[in-house]
Formats: sequence, C-alpha cells, structure tokens
Amino acid sequence: MSDYDLVIRGGTLASAAEVFEADIGIKDGVIAALGRNLPRGVEEIPAKGMVVTPGGIDSHCHIEELGQDGSVQEESFASGSAAALAGGTTSFICFLPQWKGHGLADSAPGYEARAAASRADYSFHQIITDPTPDVLRRELPALVARGIRSFKVFLTYDPLRLTDREFIEVLAAARRLGAFVTVHCENYDAIGWRIEALLRAGLTDPLQHAWSRPPVVEREATHRAIALAELVDQPIQVFHVSCEEAAAEIAAARARGLKVWGETCPQYLTLSHADLQGADFAGAKAVCSPALREAGENERVWKRIQDGTLDVVTSDHCGFSFATQKKVAGSSAYGTGTAASRPDGTPVFNAIPNGVPGIETRMPVLFSEGVSKGRIDLPTFVRLTSANAAKLFGLQGRKGSLMPGADADLVLWDPDAERTIRNAALHHAIDYTPWEGMAVKGWPGTTIRRGEVAVRDGEVLAPPGSGRFLPRGPYALARPRGVVPDGFDAASV
Amino acid sequence: MSDYDLVIRGGTLASAAEVFEADIGIKDGVIAALGRNLPRGVEEIPAKGMVVTPGGIDSHCHIEELGQDGSVQEESFASGSAAALAGGTTSFICFLPQWKGHGLADSAPGYEARAAASRADYSFHQIITDPTPDVLRRELPALVARGIRSFKVFLTYDPLRLTDREFIEVLAAARRLGAFVTVHCENYDAIGWRIEALLRAGLTDPLQHAWSRPPVVEREATHRAIALAELVDQPIQVFHVSCEEAAAEIAAARARGLKVWGETCPQYLTLSHADLQGADFAGAKAVCSPALREAGENERVWKRIQDGTLDVVTSDHCGFSFATQKKVAGSSAYGTGTAASRPDGTPVFNAIPNGVPGIETRMPVLFSEGVSKGRIDLPTFVRLTSANAAKLFGLQGRKGSLMPGADADLVLWDPDAERTIRNAALHHAIDYTPWEGMAVKGWPGTTIRRGEVAVRDGEVLAPPGSGRFLPRGPYALARPRGVVPDGFDAASV
Amino acid sequence: MSDYDLVIRGGTLASAAEVFEADIGIKDGVIAALGRNLPRGVEEIPAKGMVVTPGGIDSHCHIEELGQDGSVQEESFASGSAAALAGGTTSFICFLPQWKGHGLADSAPGYEARAAASRADYSFHQIITDPTPDVLRRELPALVARGIRSFKVFLTYDPLRLTDREFIEVLAAARRLGAFVTVHCENYDAIGWRIEALLRAGLTDPLQHAWSRPPVVEREATHRAIALAELVDQPIQVFHVSCEEAAAEIAAARARGLKVWGETCPQYLTLSHADLQGADFAGAKAVCSPALREAGENERVWKRIQDGTLDVVTSDHCGFSFATQKKVAGSSAYGTGTAASRPDGTPVFNAIPNGVPGIETRMPVLFSEGVSKGRIDLPTFVRLTSANAAKLFGLQGRKGSLMPGADADLVLWDPDAERTIRNAALHHAIDYTPWEGMAVKGWPGTTIRRGEVAVRDGEVLAPPGSGRFLPRGPYALARPRGVVPDGFDAASV
Amino acid sequence: MSDYDLVIRGGTLASAAEVFEADIGIKDGVIAALGRNLPRGVEEIPAKGMVVTPGGIDSHCHIEELGQDGSVQEESFASGSAAALAGGTTSFICFLPQWKGHGLADSAPGYEARAAASRADYSFHQIITDPTPDVLRRELPALVARGIRSFKVFLTYDPLRLTDREFIEVLAAARRLGAFVTVHCENYDAIGWRIEALLRAGLTDPLQHAWSRPPVVEREATHRAIALAELVDQPIQVFHVSCEEAAAEIAAARARGLKVWGETCPQYLTLSHADLQGADFAGAKAVCSPALREAGENERVWKRIQDGTLDVVTSDHCGFSFATQKKVAGSSAYGTGTAASRPDGTPVFNAIPNGVPGIETRMPVLFSEGVSKGRIDLPTFVRLTSANAAKLFGLQGRKGSLMPGADADLVLWDPDAERTIRNAALHHAIDYTPWEGMAVKGWPGTTIRRGEVAVRDGEVLAPPGSGRFLPRGPYALARPRGVVPDGFDAASV
Repeated sequence: MSDYDLVIRGGTLASAAEVFEADIGIKDGVIAALGRNLPRGVEEIPAKGMVVTPGGIDSHCHIEELGQDGSVQEESFASGSAAALAGGTTSFICFLPQWKGHGLADSAPGYEARAAASRADYSFHQIITDPTPDVLRRELPALVARGIRSFKVFLTYDPLRLTDREFIEVLAAARRLGAFVTVHCENYDAIGWRIEALLRAGLTDPLQHAWSRPPVVEREATHRAIALAELVDQPIQVFHVSCEEAAAEIAAARARGLKVWGETCPQYLTLSHADLQGADFAGAKAVCSPALREAGENERVWKRIQDGTLDVVTSDHCGFSFATQKKVAGSSAYGTGTAASRPDGTPVFNAIPNGVPGIETRMPVLFSEGVSKGRIDLPTFVRLTSANAAKLFGLQGRKGSLMPGADADLVLWDPDAERTIRNAALHHAIDYTPWEGMAVKGWPGTTIRRGEVAVRDGEVLAPPGSGRFLPRGPYALARPRGVVPDGFDAASV
Repeated sequence: MSDYDLVIRGGTLASAAEVFEADIGIKDGVIAALGRNLPRGVEEIPAKGMVVTPGGIDSHCHIEELGQDGSVQEESFASGSAAALAGGTTSFICFLPQWKGHGLADSAPGYEARAAASRADYSFHQIITDPTPDVLRRELPALVARGIRSFKVFLTYDPLRLTDREFIEVLAAARRLGAFVTVHCENYDAIGWRIEALLRAGLTDPLQHAWSRPPVVEREATHRAIALAELVDQPIQVFHVSCEEAAAEIAAARARGLKVWGETCPQYLTLSHADLQGADFAGAKAVCSPALREAGENERVWKRIQDGTLDVVTSDHCGFSFATQKKVAGSSAYGTGTAASRPDGTPVFNAIPNGVPGIETRMPVLFSEGVSKGRIDLPTFVRLTSANAAKLFGLQGRKGSLMPGADADLVLWDPDAERTIRNAALHHAIDYTPWEGMAVKGWPGTTIRRGEVAVRDGEVLAPPGSGRFLPRGPYALARPRGVVPDGFDAASV
Repeated sequence: MSDYDLVIRGGTLASAAEVFEADIGIKDGVIAALGRNLPRGVEEIPAKGMVVTPGGIDSHCHIEELGQDGSVQEESFASGSAAALAGGTTSFICFLPQWKGHGLADSAPGYEARAAASRADYSFHQIITDPTPDVLRRELPALVARGIRSFKVFLTYDPLRLTDREFIEVLAAARRLGAFVTVHCENYDAIGWRIEALLRAGLTDPLQHAWSRPPVVEREATHRAIALAELVDQPIQVFHVSCEEAAAEIAAARARGLKVWGETCPQYLTLSHADLQGADFAGAKAVCSPALREAGENERVWKRIQDGTLDVVTSDHCGFSFATQKKVAGSSAYGTGTAASRPDGTPVFNAIPNGVPGIETRMPVLFSEGVSKGRIDLPTFVRLTSANAAKLFGLQGRKGSLMPGADADLVLWDPDAERTIRNAALHHAIDYTPWEGMAVKGWPGTTIRRGEVAVRDGEVLAPPGSGRFLPRGPYALARPRGVVPDGFDAASV
Repeated sequence: MSDYDLVIRGGTLASAAEVFEADIGIKDGVIAALGRNLPRGVEEIPAKGMVVTPGGIDSHCHIEELGQDGSVQEESFASGSAAALAGGTTSFICFLPQWKGHGLADSAPGYEARAAASRADYSFHQIITDPTPDVLRRELPALVARGIRSFKVFLTYDPLRLTDREFIEVLAAARRLGAFVTVHCENYDAIGWRIEALLRAGLTDPLQHAWSRPPVVEREATHRAIALAELVDQPIQVFHVSCEEAAAEIAAARARGLKVWGETCPQYLTLSHADLQGADFAGAKAVCSPALREAGENERVWKRIQDGTLDVVTSDHCGFSFATQKKVAGSSAYGTGTAASRPDGTPVFNAIPNGVPGIETRMPVLFSEGVSKGRIDLPTFVRLTSANAAKLFGLQGRKGSLMPGADADLVLWDPDAERTIRNAALHHAIDYTPWEGMAVKGWPGTTIRRGEVAVRDGEVLAPPGSGRFLPRGPYALARPRGVVPDGFDAASV
C-alpha cells in the first residue's frame, strides 16, 4: 500500500522563503512529505517544469452579501468559489455583515448556511457597524470562540462607518479577545464635502469618483487608524492601500515598532484614472474605493510591496455587473450617495456601486506583473498571496504552507504560459473584468484543494459544498509590542 | 519744536532680523525714526545697556470669557491687560465665544464692550462651535469686514468640538474670506475613552490628566487638521504644540510645502509631569490641555523652536485660581468631564478647570530660558513673541516691528537683571503662577504702548480703557500654495 | 547744515525681516536714520515706487585669479566689480589662492594689491590646498588677525583637493581660530573614474560633463563634509548646492542641530542639461561644477530655498570667455582633465574650463525668478543676497542691513521694469552670459555704495580703486552646538 | 533497506519562514525528505521537544590568518572549526588575505591548504588591498571561476585600506564578474586624527579606543560606501554595523531601492562601553572595530534587526588571547597604531589587537537574547544565522535550508536549557570570551554536518579535515536594480 494518496512529482516548489525541487506526498488531504524521489503515490501528477505554490488565500472578498434592504450580491458562494479555485485561490475570507440596529446574530440570517455551498475553504471577518455593549461583551467573545477571530471596521460609508469612539471600543475588545482588526481607511466627512461640491459644480461622470476621494483622505484615515490602534496597543491591518501617501504612514508606524500591516490589491498595482474614463460609461467598471489614482502611482505601490510595507495582496472582489448594476441608476445601495441619475439614465458618480471583481484574476495578474516582470521573486509572491495572510489570520501551519502537516492546497503554475484575460473565460458571475484583454505570462493550470484536484486545465472539478469552514486561531505575525504611553492597560478595565 | 514726542536713546535694538544700536524717535504714538544721534525729543528715555524689543503680541489668551451658564472667567480685561503690559505684552488676541445653538452675534452679549476696559491693545479670534449656514455665509463675512480675520476651532471639549465636516466647512469659509484658522488639536473620542478607563480603575489624581491625553491623541488630531486643511488648501496654525510627535507632523507638512504653522507656550518649554504631582493637590495648578509631558520633552520642543517648526510662543493664559476653582469640585464648567469630586472634596482629574495663567510671565520666562540661556538669539525671541504673530494675524507693519510707521510698542529689557518670579508681584487676578520661585535673568522694566509709558519699574501706569481694538488685515506669511489634488476649488462652490 | 549727506526718499524698504515705507538718511557713508519725513539731505534721491534693498554681497566669486602656471583669469577686479555694482552687488568675497607647495604668503604674489583696483568693497576667502603645520599654526592665525576669517577647501580638482585628513586639520584650525569654512563638495575619485569610462567609450561632448559627475558624487561629498565637520564641531557652509540629494543631507544635518549651511547659485535654479547641449559647442558655456542637472531639479532646489535649507545665493562667477577659453582645447588649466581636443579642435568635455559668469546677473535673475514670480518674498530675497552672508562671514551690522550704523550700501529696484538680458549690455569682461535672452521683471536701476551713487541708470560711476578691503569679524549665525560624541575637544590639543 | 541513513524524528523545525513539526530523512549527507512519520532510518535521532534549525553559516570570521610579517593568528582551522560546530555553525567564510605589493596568488601562501584541516565546511572572501590591473582583470575572474565570489574591502586600517578610487575599481570588477562585495566602513583619516589627539592628551586606556572612532566615523564611511556602490550599481553588504547612525544610512538606501545589506554581530547587540573599562586592563578584551558603543545603543541595533535593515548576524571572530596578545604591547600588528606601551607594559589603546572571539557563542547568545527573550522569532533567527547569508553568498539551496536537496546541516536546540557561558567550556584556542559568566537560555546540544553527527552533548566528534571547501554561486538576494543616473554602464568599459 502506498504511503501517499497523491504525489506531485518533480515540481519547482516555492515556499515563503525558498525555491527548491521536490516531490510532494499527500495523504488524507494533508501534505505528508516533501522529498526527492518519494515513493509512488496512488495517484501521481507530474510537475516537471511547473512552479508549485501554496494555494492562495484571498483574505478580503465580498461574496453573496445580504443587504439590510433584502438585496443579495450577485456573486454567489458557488460561483465565487469556482472563480477563486480557477485562479489558484483555495481559501478565502469574506464578511459577516452587521446590520445597523441589529446584533451580530440576527444580521444577515442564513448567511453562514449559504456559505456552505462554497467549493473553496472559507472563513469570515465580522464587520462591526454597531458596537453595542452586548456585541462587545457577549457576541464577540462567542464569535472568537467559534474561530472567527478578525473584525472589520469602516471609517467611511454611511451605513457602515464607526465613530472614533466606536472604533476604539472595537480595538479594545479585540485586544481583550486576542482578535485581529482590519480597517477601511478613508475620511467620511472629507469625502462627503467633496462629493457635494462636485455635484454642485455639475461634475458627475465616473472620473469624479477619484476626485471626490483624493489620496489625502485615505492618508488621514490611515494615520488616524494607526494612532488609535497605538493608543489601544492593538494590531491592525489597513485594507486596500491605494497610494504612497497612505503606505508611507504604515511604513512610519512600523519604523516606530507598531503592530500595523498593510494590504493592497491588483487594481492599485495596474489600473489608474485612465480606467475611469472609458466611452459608454465604461469608467464605472473601475469605480472602487479607495479610488484608482493618477498614472505613476502604481509604481509607488509596487515599491511599497518591494520594501515590505504592503505584505498581503487580496482581490477585494465585489460582484456588481456592469449591465445590471454599475450603469443603472438606483440599482444598488452600495454606492456612496443617492440614487440620482444623469440625463442618460446612468448614475451620478457617487451612486455607482463600489468595487471591482477580481477573485479569479488576483493571482495570475500578480504572477505576471510581479514575478514574470521581475518586480518580485517567487517567495515574495507566496508571502503576498497566502503565507502572510495565513499568519495574520490564524491559519499558519494549515494554509499558505508547503510544509508537512499543512493542508495540501497547491497550485501548479506554468510559468511560461501566455494568456489573454477574457471575461468570457472567467468563472465568476459578473459580466466584466477590469483586466479584459490584458496579456499575462504565467498561468495556474491545476489547483489542488486538500489533496483533491479542484481545477484541471481550467475546468473546475470541485463541486459546490466541497469547501469547508475554517475556524481560525490567533494571529502569528506579532511585531514587538507597540509603544504604550504609560503602563496602564486601558482596554482591560 | 521737537520732531519727536519721545526718544528712546541709545538702546540695543532687536528686530526680527538684527540687533543694532539706535535711538528711536516717536511721534504721535508711532515710530517716526530710527537713528544714530536723533535730535532731542520732548521726552527722553535713556536706554543705554538696555535691549529694546517690539512690544509682545500674545495671540492666544483667555480673558473674562462669558460662559453659556452665566459664569465669567476670573481674569478681567482690566487685570489681564495690566498683567500683559507688566510682562512686556502690548497687544493680545483673545476669543469671541460662540455659544452652541446661538449665532455669533447673540453669543456672549456685551463681551466686546467689556473688552474696551483693556489697558493693552486687543483683538479677537472668533471661536466657532456651530457653523450653521447663517454663520458661514452671513456672520463670518461681516466679522471679517470688521477686521476680525481669524477663527478658532476645537477638535475636543464637549461644548466646543467640531466634527470633521464642520471643521471643513469652517476651513472653506476661511478660504473664501481670506481669513486664518487656528486649531486646538486633540482627539476627543480617544480622550473620552481614556478618561473613562482611568476613572473605572479608580485613578483620579491630577497626574491622570496627562495619562488621559497622551501625545498620540495630540499627534492624531494634528495630522487630521493638517490633512483637512490640505484638502481645502487653507492656511492654519496649530495651537499649543506640547510634544515632538505633534511638532513632527507640522514639520513634515511644511516640508511638503503646506501652509501650516505651529505655536507653543512656555508651559511646554519648562514644565512636565513632575508639576502635576505636588502635595496638597498642587498638581491641579498645572492642569492644562494639551497636558504637560514627561521629563525630557521640553528639550524636544525647544529643538522645534530652534528649527523654526514652532514659530510663535503664546501664553494660552487661562485664569482659574487654585483656591476657588482648581481645587474645588464643581466650581467650573471648564473641565473636560463631570463635576465629580474625590473623597477630600477636590475634583477628579477631569473636572479640574483646564489652563494655566501666564500672560505676564510669558516673555520673561522665554527671555530667560531662551535668550539668557543661549537657546535662541534676540531676533528669534522677537519673532516668537511678536513679529510672527503680527504677520500671521494681519498686524504686520503696525505691531511686532521697530520700523518707522509701526506703533511705538516697545519693551526695555535689562538683560542682566535677575529676579525670582513670585505670584505676589504679578498683576493678574489669579492666586498662583506655575512658575512660582523660578529664577529668571532678563526683565522688562519699561513697557511703552503707542508711545506712552505704560509700565515703569513694574508699576502699571496705563489706565483701564486706554487699550484699543485692533482691526486686522489678511495674513502675510503665505507659504507656497499647498498641493491641491486636482484643479477644482471645492471651497468655491 | 543738513543732518544728512543724502536722503533716499519715499522708497519701499525691504529688510531681512520686513517691508516698510521710510526715508533713509545717510551721513558719512553710513545709514544714519530711517524715518518718515526725514529732514532734507544735501542730496536727495526720490524712491517712490522703488523697492530699496541692502546692496548685495556676493560671497563666492572668482576674480582675476592668478594660476601657478602664470595665467591670469580674464575677469579683472576693475571689470568684475563694475559688473557687480551694475547688478546691485556692493561687496564681494573672492579667493586668495594657495599654490601647492607654497605657503599662503608666497602664493599668488601681488594678488591683494591687484584687488585694490576694485570699485566695490571686497574681502577674501583663503583657499587652502596644502595645510602644512606652518600654514595651520602660523599663517592662518595671522590671516584671521587681519580679518580674513574664512577658509575654502575643495574635495575635488587635482591641484586643489584635500585629503580627508587635511580637511580635518583645516576644520580643527578654524575651530581654534573662530574662523568659518566653506567647502566644494564632490567626490574626486568617483568623478575621475567616470571621466575615464566616458572617454574610453568615446563620449566627449559637453553634456558628458554632467554624466561624469552625477548627483550621487555631490551627495557623497556633502555627507562626508558634514560628518567631518560634526567630528570636529566646526561650522561650515556647503558651496553651490545643485540638487535635492545634496540639499537633503544639509537639511538632515540641521535637523540634528549641526552647524551646517548651504549655498546655491542662479545656474542651479534656472539652467539644466538642455543648456549643455546647444549647437556649435554652445553647451560649453554652461559647463560648471557641480554640473547642471536634469530638467525638474531646478524646482527641487527652489523648494530647498523656500524651506530655508539653502539660505545664501551667490554667483560663483568664473570668468572664462567662450571664444578664447571655453571652446579652445588647451586654453586653460581650469578644466578637470587633460587638454585633449576633439577632432574639430574643441576640447573634450573634461578639458573645458569650469564655471559660468554671473556676478552681474545674480540679483536680477533671482529677483525676477524669485520675487516677481512669487517663489520668495522680499525679505527672503534680502536674506539670500546679502543679510545671511553678512552674518556667516562676519559683516553683520556693516553690510546686508538697512539699519542705522550700517554702511549705506543700497539698491533701488524698479519692481515693474521688464528687461531682456543681453551680454552686450553687461559690464563683465566675458563674451557671453548663460542667461542671454532671458526676460526678467525687476531691475536694479541705482546702486549706492557707502553713500555714493555707484551706478545710475546702468551707468557705472564708481571708479576703479573706490572699493575697500573689508576686514571681517567672527560669524554670527551660530546654531546650537553640534553633538560632540564625547567631552574631549580633539581640535584643542 | 532503509531509504534514509539517518532520521531526525519528531522535532520542531524552524525554516526561514515557518515553524512546523516534521521528521527529517537524510541520505548521502543531504536532506532527502521532510515528513510526518517517515520510515525508519538506519540511524535515528529523537528530537521531540527539540528545535531543529539549519546549521549556522558564519559568513565573517578570521581564522589562522597569515600576516605579511610571518605571524599566524592563534585560532587554527582545527580549533576554530571545532568551536564553530560546538556552537551550531556548520559552515563559515573566512578571508584570503592580499598582502600589499603582492598579487592574490602569492599572498599568504599555503593558506588554502591549511584550511583543509577544518572540521566544518568553509569558503573564503578575498580581501583586496591592492587592486592592480592584473588583480582586477586576471586574478579575480580566475577566483570567481573557482567559486570564490565575494570580495572584502577595508576603508580603514593602514595595511588594508583602499582609496575611494581603488574601492570603485573593485566594485566595477565585481559588477562585471557577478561577485559580491563586503565592506568595513570607518573613516581612516578621522580615526587617525582622533587617535593622535587622544595620545597627545595622554589618554591611553582601552576605553579611548571607543572615543577614537565614534559613530560618526562609521556613519560617514557607510554613506560613502553606499554612494559609491550606487554609482557603480553593485550590490554590497556593510559589515559589522555597530550603531543606529550607520544602520539608518542602510535603511535609507534600501528605501531608495538600492542593493545594500547590513550585517551586525553579537558584540554590538550585548556589549558596550562598560565592557571596555574593566580592572586589570580587562577592557582590552572588548576592543574591536567598529568600537562598542554607549549604553542604550544595543537596543537600537536590535530594532534594526527587527525592521530587517540588519539581516545577517556573524561573529567577526578574531582570535587574540588576552594574556599573550591583548595585554602585551608590541605583540601584534593587528592594532591600529604603533606598538607603544604604557608605563605598566600594557599597550596604548590603539596598539591593542582588534577583535573579539565569538564563533562558538554567536548562535547561543543570539538564540538566548533574541528568541528566548522574545525579540525575534525562530524564522528570523534562521534568516539571521544562516538563510540570508546563504542567499547573499551563493549557497542557497545547499546551506541554510531544511528543504530537500540541501546539505543535512542541522542543529538540535534544547530551547529550555539554561547554561552559563564559561571560556573553560569553549573549544576555541583563545583564553577568554567577552561573554564570560553570561546566563543563556537555549543550547545547541547536537550539531549535524552533512548528515554526520559532528557534535553530541558538547563533544566535538568531527575530526580535522572533515570539512569541505564550498565553491559558491552568484548571490540570490537581488533587490530591484539601483538607480543609475544615466543609461551608461561605466563599469563595462
């Protein structure tokens, strides 16, 4: 009887630290051994010439979210997880909403049950919009006990934003519970003021979205989030950093020894104002927040990846189709403003649903623009797409690793394959991709999830429901303790 | 007939740029000439061996403020201005309050009339606590037309604080009107959270005031104020910078070319936590906001004076006597919290009225610690105490200058005089000074205000009502235009 | 009898700190009084509508230098000083050479006597190329005793450069003597290596001059000069800063409290690589060291003027005509390399004599590009062109000031005059100006030197020999003492 | 027949990225497999509860160096390599000297043959003191072809230092050859000047060693080395960074995208001025260059380890016994000065041989002070002690790795073992250790070198001569290309 259910033979393996040649022996869905000339497995997959990386963790994506108004996001767990696997992502973390005025348990009822349809492994960040004492003192401990150990807060968006005081309370709760906090950093009031001024001036097209929230509003909120986290001495991750101004705040915080991390997304590495200006309202396809920046900013964000300030790349996948949502005034509550429309029926810039789809393209775009173009090496690619997220979000040792004992989540890349991204070939439910027509080099031909071939040659084999919920442990990337201005632990009383 | 009503003869003059020997000829209250061997005046004051500087401008002091609750601050215009003159300050700018829920005109009725009792020249900053459209669009333009061209906003204190949106609206109004904005920068929510935690932990003594608002809460609000001013492209001055963390934000803003200035006060240059810890509740005497910092921070603030980041030194004079206010629970609404008392009847730390008296000691303390100890030269002393304030607050050419045409506001310093500061010898209405017992070198023996001897040998000669209201022009210290993320002037629509 | 020999009546005066209206009364060549409505002078010059500034101090220019090979620089004291006065400069500091292998006294014999032909007041920096014990311990003290209180060292150029050890010895001597040190900062070895590589590659045209000494070689030497000055605790001025990289080192040093100042020149504020590329070898006209930088660098240097890092602007006037020197191979020993020529007889880039003429255009170009274009205000212009140099070089109170007691060196500017710079209209001996054809706004119509009209309507009235040698006192711009790593004063033993 | 010669069973493995549980199967001296429940090996070592790391690489140590004067350093290859293995170091890189006036091949004849006595694997950096054309164009290419791919240059020490020009030539040669360059950064001239001043002042005790070379001389040379490497676009490693000032230069260079790395040593993390001041001349034991710094600096260096600026920790092992060398005037040519002695026969501070022994204590001290005290995690420990050196010095995939295919160089640590460092228990030839008496937690009980047990329970089993020479490949840690001021590759011509 063979030791291994499956052996991936002869690949070039990329861990978070090294590149080396080895076979991978898999048993019961787990990596059992790495070795030269491992004994034959029950099954074998030849990987000579292939680069083998851990399966991706997309720690920031929006899937099938249920709105308080009864709406359901277009991207379902079945479709979104198919897209994830096809793009090399074997685990993702999406969001448990809290509806304003509701507790956690009675917001978005049935959401966790729906998630069971996923083909990829999954977990949740708990969004907190209303940190009542009951939420902070009763519901969050219970949530953490179930392995949901990260909270998401918004500093902007009407139905979501927290005041500084509420944010501090969430930080303090997280500190008490050993949970992690992620933050959407933009200054709500500044954006509101800008939007009104632009609308008063009659400026309504999609590009105005960028002018309504310039880098300074992101920098401000980033600095504020860091300062409040410093006050409480609680680790945070700043979500979707779009520009040097915000990244520089994170770098400065790290230099002071604070426990602050930064995430970015492929859109901030490849797209810019030009993408907000297409004909036929096509600019709406690129409306996301923070907004895309001026030409040249992409390279500054790459530099912050290279220097380690930004160490996780996610999709921030948001599923709004162009035909049914992005270009239709009043289609959605996910814009930042009213449902007002322009004369041609398209929405004013601040009524366009925010977000771009990207769960499937995240890893190929980063591989091509990063690894193939020489901006990053393979271990950095692994850290950005899985290993660092595993450590921040309590999945270390199980996900984002090729080492024995880890789940056998693997991607086999053909590093020389040249493809053109076409929405028609993607598996998500959305009718466009902002990377339509982009030529990429390097492609994830085969995805293995817990030892099973989930995708082969672009065909998704994993059925709905084959994904598993991932209860998570504490974060494992702790930096040296932050500076506490005094010895008093204000979060503890 | 003599050309000059008065000649100050043979002094060592210190302008904002130079030190030189000259006589000063005064005619009709104005400096008519500087020269060697000027003709005799009707009166003569020998100044050989004396240092002659422009009369001080204290651009930040609280005098006889009227509370919405009917309270009146202890320091009257008559007493406060006597103290000012005795300390070398010939002009000051105090505050027109806005009571919440009131317009500007119907807040603190009669306040301007009371100010007419001043012995020194005076002007007002308009505090804005409720920037309604009527205030922004009707009252502020009228105020500016009357020469009150600076607004003060608070980012903390319950009855005073503005939201970010309100702050932005004030900045935009100031931009439209060519007015200047000054800001008290501390994060309200962070302080509130800290106070509650300290009180829950039973920590109530005056030193807790400092722990309740550590440097990070000042730095956060400073960065936020700068960011919002950058968004609007409006010049601001950050009031009473207490620590390197906040000063560094200002320095960074200047390095980016932004129109941001910083002020500090003698308390942040000479006092520290130790002063919050005296016996018999004496620590209450040093309770002010921002709070005093840990030992060592003083020198960092001096360094920021030396490098030009902090270029105005004011008193932030607040008149609360120790016996009647500082140590009496419930005495005042000027604390940051409730009127709760400790077992011995003294107030909990956050119920102590905030602020220290200093309008008379400001210049002698700075002369002694700065000039006599070699930290700054005389022209820097002049810039810090009058010339820079004149430029920021629209008094250039009239105040803070020794040049012909300027008001003959002069101080004759004996640079070698050694004194010990004693509250008994001060002219303010307050029953203590935080600098009690401090030895100083250099003393302002004679103060001349518009050509009249207002103080001679410590005796205040200027009668109540001899001071004049100073209508002010636009600021004159404009830095290069700030970075506007786009060409659109959002404040204009 | 009138009190004043001359009254400048009704001008707008600009001091280093302020702009104000006043008459200037002059007696015996000295400013006797500033005042409103001064009594009539023997002579009167109406100045209504004119801006009156102190006469310029050009603290860095090369005039009639005598080479060890017998050569004499083309610009004579008579011609150079005429140009200086015509451009508003009433005092200049040029250089006493030291010939290698010679003591100070027997280098360039007769040079001081030649200088007596100057029409403007003048002083010398002593160049040190060979700091023998006799020079350091005997000759320099004697020089300082004669009021020559500043030394110049070169870190590059074959016949001039000091080793680090020699530089340290000069710094230590200056520290003992209370003298000031100025430094030409470029890395000799790096330039030499680059030159050889370029020549080997057959790249010989004038633009290669810039490629042979990129910003990094200037930054390196600037950092090194600062570090060694820090070691010795001796104030220095970095000459002719051409780029942000070097300026940033100075700014960082200042932020550490070091006694380091920076100078720049109009060529680094207005010219760039494009000027090195003209037809007919015209690029040679712009060959100077440090080299001109790439387009865009000018604005970075302006920013460092605005933030105060660079606080003196000089000409670094070097008189090499184009027809006789710049384009003639072998004409001069002032290139950085051999006398090799190109096929057309023009010199290879490193054999072109280094330096541009600018003593006459310095102030008009800075007034026009700085004041008229709104980059700097008038007091800053005064600080850059005279007041700061006066303080650094021991002329405070005498030069660079409008205050009573100062020499009556004045320039009357018509701020609205529009002119085009033409070499034909300049007074120097050189056959070109790099600013040929430049339109300027603001022109110095009248120059007064020690109370005499030296230039009227562009006509130079001051005869050769009317200038005076300026013995100088100690520097007066002392920053706080530098950080000395230990208490031991190594320069003292 | 077993698949594995040896299985390390059940240990907690620490790679450069992760910590995980696995068995290690070794075959033919190479890691053949990592796995859970690997089949039995011929031999088995139980490692339950042990931490298993890659064997250390000490990429900077001085062993048995041959002086041009016929001297031989006390530490022989046999003794030094025994000490290395006992301390967990399985590979080291020592130095091929170049004697001034000699080519590489005829310097230190027989040195490579002596090295064959090593018990650990070894390689060489080639010191270059005399980069003649023959060395640069003929000998270095031959050396690189033999797998000696790194050069060491000194910017100080009389018999070793290069001029800037020579340094540039070495950098350019390295660039052409794909070799790496390491640099000792201190300013020679500054040190010389300081030494002379101290001696003139009669200050001769060991502490003066530190005053003779303060941080500024290290910072200066570090900045210069970086600037010249930037000019040439050649990667370098700055050796033995002792202080924040130097580390900050490296961090700034990295932020600009330059290919610069930094190394430090345990002495700069744990020792300070106090160690230079013991009774009975004991301070001499701690004389090394750069010098130990003031109290407090250690923590700043730790911070630069934590932020990644310093990413390799070596011993800089130098074997000079106290009784025979350190305290004996004239004993050695390895001091920085003359052989002068003090009245008691001990040498003046600058005649004390420079360097401390540390090849055996390097890893235990770093494990204890770093890992056990919570300053760094295990993967960081692995990167600092082996993995990063492997990548910089062309040993990646073979050394510093636990992955299949790597040499089976392993250390089994008992993380809870508490020991006191005693020189009597060390294996080096030197009569003292500067860490005498230090309590450490964590001890390397077993060292395996290429699959053989080289040390068991502190007993060195590997015989002399069992170590192998390591030919090395190109560096593998390439950062993004440095900024080249122009497109011209000056190193190529």
